[in-house]
Amino acid sequence: MLTLYYAPHSCALASHLALEHSGAVYEARRVDLANGEQRSPAYLRVNPKGRVPALIAEQGVLTETPAILAYIAQRFPRARLAPLDDPFLFAEAQSFNSYLCSTVHVAHAHRYRGHRWADDPAAIEAMRIKVPQTMKACFDQIENDFFRGPYVLGEQFSICDMYLFTISRWLPGDDVDVNWFPKVADLQRRLLADATVQKVLAAQ
Amino acid sequence: MLTLYYAPHSCALASHLALEHSGAVYEARRVDLANGEQRSPAYLRVNPKGRVPALIAEQGVLTETPAILAYIAQRFPRARLAPLDDPFLFAEAQSFNSYLCSTVHVAHAHRYRGHRWADDPAAIEAMRIKVPQTMKACFDQIENDFFRGPYVLGEQFSICDMYLFTISRWLPGDDVDVNWFPKVADLQRRLLADATVQKVLAAQ
Repeated sequence: MLTLYYAPHSCALASHLALEHSGAVYEARRVDLANGEQRSPAYLRVNPKGRVPALIAEQGVLTETPAILAYIAQRFPRARLAPLDDPFLFAEAQSFNSYLCSTVHVAHAHRYRGHRWADDPAAIEAMRIKVPQTMKACFDQIENDFFRGPYVLGEQFSICDMYLFTISRWLPGDDVDVNWFPKVADLQRRLLADATVQKVLAAQ
Repeated sequence: MLTLYYAPHSCALASHLALEHSGAVYEARRVDLANGEQRSPAYLRVNPKGRVPALIAEQGVLTETPAILAYIAQRFPRARLAPLDDPFLFAEAQSFNSYLCSTVHVAHAHRYRGHRWADDPAAIEAMRIKVPQTMKACFDQIENDFFRGPYVLGEQFSICDMYLFTISRWLPGDDVDVNWFPKVADLQRRLLADATVQKVLAAQ
């Protein structure tokens, strides 16, 4: 059985959605970030990075959202969560998810996690106030250059949509209006109305 | 034929190494970052992100190092550049590369690219001076928690080694001594002595 360690409002939602859509038998275990459980010795034995998500499989532990999403897609191919049969199309999906992880999530993290990259409180505040601008730039690029419609990769719903949906839910807190990006906003509305997505959101 | 757009000293070295090790027929085209070629209309048509690397394949353009590396490994399976036959082992490789991309490269980028995340010069300087600390923390984690030896994934040389080698070469500029991490330092020495690596470094 697979076990997902997650926290509400975190990027772990993407992996939770992929597990639910995959048809896998899995358990979701909440990590209490507010009380620092992610830095407890017990959790650090699961994931020495002290972050969520972490996925426990039979062979070991996986971390990093793009890797977990591709693993779920490859392990449950009948769910058709990614274009697995063509290396180029699979790489396009990975490229999109890598951008979300290394550029968009990082831009967002400068709002609440500036202490990772500077110690001076004034610098941390300077990072915080630029987040609306950087997040808007990221979503402009997604909307204009990468989102094919009706789903990210075109006709096929995929792990890219689950990850983008997850991050798009952070936009209000970043003072960015999702409606500035019509294709992203439409995807968000459709997924919010989806029974599987509603089930996961309720469980979290 | 494949075409790689790269710049010297950038993370594009990892993709260049993978292409050379794959046996692919390819061309490497240098992008002149110092003169802003990455923001030229011609290059933005190749890669609207205005960054390197970008890999031009028959079906289109790929960006993001983890996606390009996995694509090269999947497209040229006989080169055995990644564990392709087991989704879990493949995911471990992807997890390692995703960490390099979204945490380690990002930590390094705060040295020269702080303007991405703040406008105040004092904040940009505050980011710059923390880079030795964050890069040491990243490499401590790699050395202690992820690097199996003699290669990152164990006995098999892979795209993970090429990417780690690439980033490890930035450590002197970040005021971090690679010899603090014996397994990483040993990998760096072995790859610097490798004829294929030497060929790519000379070509760049």
